[in-house]
Amino acid sequence: MDQPVTSLQRPHVVIVGAGFGGLATAQGLGNADVDVTLIDKRNHHLFQPLLYQVATAGLSPADIAAPIRGILKRNANTRVVLDRVYGVDTEHKRIILGDGEPMSYDWLVLATGARHSYFGRDDWAPFAPGIKTIEDATAVRRKVLMAMERAETEADPDKRQALLTFVIIGGGPTGVEMAGAIAELARQSVSKDFRSITPRCAKVILVEGGDRLLASFPEALSAKAKTAIEQLGVDVWLGQQVVSVDKMGVMVGEKFIAASTAIWAAGVQASRAAEWLGITPDRAGRVPVGCDLRAPNESAVFVIGDTAACSGANGKPLPGVAPVAKQQGMHVANSIIAAIKGRSIEPFQYRNYGNLATIGRNRAVADFGRIQVSGHLAWLLWCVAHIWFLSGYRNRFVVGANWLWNYLTYTRGARLITGEVSPDLPATLVPRPALRPLNI
Amino acid sequence: MDQPVTSLQRPHVVIVGAGFGGLATAQGLGNADVDVTLIDKRNHHLFQPLLYQVATAGLSPADIAAPIRGILKRNANTRVVLDRVYGVDTEHKRIILGDGEPMSYDWLVLATGARHSYFGRDDWAPFAPGIKTIEDATAVRRKVLMAMERAETEADPDKRQALLTFVIIGGGPTGVEMAGAIAELARQSVSKDFRSITPRCAKVILVEGGDRLLASFPEALSAKAKTAIEQLGVDVWLGQQVVSVDKMGVMVGEKFIAASTAIWAAGVQASRAAEWLGITPDRAGRVPVGCDLRAPNESAVFVIGDTAACSGANGKPLPGVAPVAKQQGMHVANSIIAAIKGRSIEPFQYRNYGNLATIGRNRAVADFGRIQVSGHLAWLLWCVAHIWFLSGYRNRFVVGANWLWNYLTYTRGARLITGEVSPDLPATLVPRPALRPLNI
Repeated sequence: MDQPVTSLQRPHVVIVGAGFGGLATAQGLGNADVDVTLIDKRNHHLFQPLLYQVATAGLSPADIAAPIRGILKRNANTRVVLDRVYGVDTEHKRIILGDGEPMSYDWLVLATGARHSYFGRDDWAPFAPGIKTIEDATAVRRKVLMAMERAETEADPDKRQALLTFVIIGGGPTGVEMAGAIAELARQSVSKDFRSITPRCAKVILVEGGDRLLASFPEALSAKAKTAIEQLGVDVWLGQQVVSVDKMGVMVGEKFIAASTAIWAAGVQASRAAEWLGITPDRAGRVPVGCDLRAPNESAVFVIGDTAACSGANGKPLPGVAPVAKQQGMHVANSIIAAIKGRSIEPFQYRNYGNLATIGRNRAVADFGRIQVSGHLAWLLWCVAHIWFLSGYRNRFVVGANWLWNYLTYTRGARLITGEVSPDLPATLVPRPALRPLNI
Repeated sequence: MDQPVTSLQRPHVVIVGAGFGGLATAQGLGNADVDVTLIDKRNHHLFQPLLYQVATAGLSPADIAAPIRGILKRNANTRVVLDRVYGVDTEHKRIILGDGEPMSYDWLVLATGARHSYFGRDDWAPFAPGIKTIEDATAVRRKVLMAMERAETEADPDKRQALLTFVIIGGGPTGVEMAGAIAELARQSVSKDFRSITPRCAKVILVEGGDRLLASFPEALSAKAKTAIEQLGVDVWLGQQVVSVDKMGVMVGEKFIAASTAIWAAGVQASRAAEWLGITPDRAGRVPVGCDLRAPNESAVFVIGDTAACSGANGKPLPGVAPVAKQQGMHVANSIIAAIKGRSIEPFQYRNYGNLATIGRNRAVADFGRIQVSGHLAWLLWCVAHIWFLSGYRNRFVVGANWLWNYLTYTRGARLITGEVSPDLPATLVPRPALRPLNI
C-alpha cells in the first residue's frame, strides 16, 4: 500500500473485530505511541444487546449500529480497514486478509466474537434463525410480521394457529427478551391492525432445557422473571429438550408444537480464532487464554471477548457479555502499553457491576450481588444502562426517543417487511395461467 | 375465506397499491357505505420523495415507511391484504391474486405506480441502479459507502479515483437531490473518517440530456439550481447523452467517465396495469384515462397516479408526483360515493399548489406560479412540507429530529453497510490457500 500507517519505529497493533472488545482495545490505545489497524468485515459496530428490538420492530438497524470510522475518527494513530481475515501466520507475525495482502503485526488482538450454535444440528438453522447480525434481525422481523400477515388471510383455523404460534428456544437473557417482545408485539402493539385475526390468538412459547429461566441470575430473580413473562402471555416450558425443528414446527420432548416461527436463542459457538492459531479450543470453540489474556504459547497474541475462554476470580468461566469484552479490551490496551514501556503485564480481573435482563414494559430483573431488584425500578435501570452504553450521542438520542414513543403509544414503529415478499408466499411465485372458479 | 368483510349488500371497492394514490382512495372511503380491500405486495406505505435520503445514509428505511395496517387501523370498513396481483378479469369483475384466490370487485382502483426505466437498455440496470423501493435505496447506500471503503485501501491512484467518482444520470428532481446528497456525504459528512483518502477527491457528475436541470421548473429556477449544486462541488453536464454504462464507468457522448458508482434517475416506466386491462398504453406504459380517471371502456375501473396518463387543464400531461396521485385518489373516492348514491361523476381537476426541489443544506428551489423562491427560504419550505406530508406523527418526529441532528453536526447517521460485504470485495470470496510474500 502506498500510504502505510505503519512505520518502522512504532509498534503495529492489529485488532480483528470491532465489537465491544476490539473497539475498547482501539480506544484504549488512542493516545499510545503505536499504530493501530482495526479490521472488521462490517463497516459498523453493532450494539448487540438491543438487536432483539430490531427483530421485534421496536428499533431500526441504524439506531443501534454506528460506523466504526465515525467512532474512531479522532484517533489519529488508528486506521480502520473493512476486510475479512482468513488466517494468522504467527511464525512471521502476519495475518491473511481477503484483499490478498498479508499484514504484519507486532501485537495482535483477536476479538472476533461468536455466532449462534445449533449443537451440531445446523439443519435446524433455516427454521429457527438466531439473531447475531443486523441481517439476522431483519430476517426474523420479516418472518414474524409475515406470519401475522399470512394468518390474516388464512382460512384454515389450524394453519392460522400455526402461523400465530411463536416458539423461542433458550431461556437465557436473549430468549426471555425475545419472548417478551414478541408477546408485546403480537398481543398489544398490532391488536387494532388486523381484521380477521385478533392478536390475542397469538401463542408465544419459551422452551428452556434447564429447570429455570436466566440461569446466570439468582434463583429468586429467575422466579420473578418467569412470573413476569407469564403475565405477558408467554407459556414457559422448563426442563424440556428440543428434539427437532422443521418448517411445520418444533418437537419438544414427545410433544409437537405446530408453529411457523421458531427462534433460536439457545447457544453460541466462538469464531474461528482457535483454528487460525492452531490451538485446541474448548467445547464452545473458544481459545483458552491465560490470566493475561494471551493465547497459549503466543506472547504477541491476545484473545478477548466471546471468542476467549477465561476464568473469573471464583474459577467459573466468565460469561459472554459486553462488560467482560470491554474490560478485557481496555486491559489488553494497557498491557500492550506496559509491555512497550518494558513493564510487566498484569493479570486480568473482571469487575462485575451487575447483571440486567428485561422481560418487557416495566418488567426486568437486576442482580447487583447483595442487592436484587425487579419490576419497574429494574426496568428503568435497564433502560438507562442501555442508553448509557450505546455508542454515540445520536444513537442514544434516537433510541431514547423511540422508547419513549413506544412506551407512550404501545406501538412498535419499525414494522417493516423488507426484501421481496414472494419467497414467503410460495404461491405468488407462479403467475396463474388461467382463472379458477370464484370461491370466496 | 371464512370471515369475509365483503357482504352482498355493500359494494366492494378493491384498491391495488398503497402508494399516495391508493392510500388516499382508501382514506377517502373510510366513512363510506362500502367494503374496501386494499392490496399491496408490501406491508408498508413508502414516502418515496425522501427515499434518496435513505440511499445517502441520512435516514433509516423505517423513518419514511409506515405499516399500511397501522395507517388504516381506524377504518373499520377496510381490509388490508399483503399479496401480489397477477391480472384483472374485467368481464367477471375480479382480480387474480398470488395466493390463488380470485377476488371479486364492484369498483376497482389501480394505483400500481411505476419503476425506473432504462429505455430498452435493461442491461445497464446492474451498473446504474435506480431508487424506487427500500431495497433499491439500501443497495445504493451500500454501493456508495462500499466504494469509499475500497478507495481507502486502494493503492492504484486511477482505480482510487474511479472508486471516488459518482455519476448520476438524469437531471430531474431525483437526480439533483441524489447528486447534492452524495456530494455532501462524500465531501463533508465523512471527511474525518478516512486516513488514506481525503473526501475532497470525490468527484460527483450529474449528466442530463436536456439543456437544463429541473425541466419542469421555470428557467430562472433551473439556473439557480445549477449554480447551487455546482457550489456543492457537483459537475453538471447538460445536453449530454449516455451511450453506455458498465462496471468500469459511463460513456457520455464520446467521453468515458471511469466510475465505480452510477445511479439512474433518468426515467420511469409505469406498472403493468395497461396489460392487465388489455389496453394500449402510452410510451411510458401508462393507461390513458378519461377526465373522470376511468380506464377506456371500463366504467368500474379507475386508474390513478404514476400508472395513469392524464392531462391537466393546460392540455399538458400531469407529472408523476405525489400531489397528483393524492388528489386523484381523493377524487376517485368521491366519485365512487357519488356513483353509489346515483349522482354523476365529476371530471378530475388537478390543483397545483407548487413545486419544490432540494439541492442540499440551505439550498432548494420552489415554484408557486407567480412567486418563485430559492435558497434558505425554499429549503425551509421544502423541509416543512416534507415533514407535514409524511404519514404518522412518529415518522414526522423521527425525520425532523434526524434532520436537526444532521444539520447541526454535518454528519449522516445511517451510514450502514448491510448485506454480506464479500460480493463487493471479489477477492475475499476466495480464501487464500497459502501465504504470499509480504509486500507492505
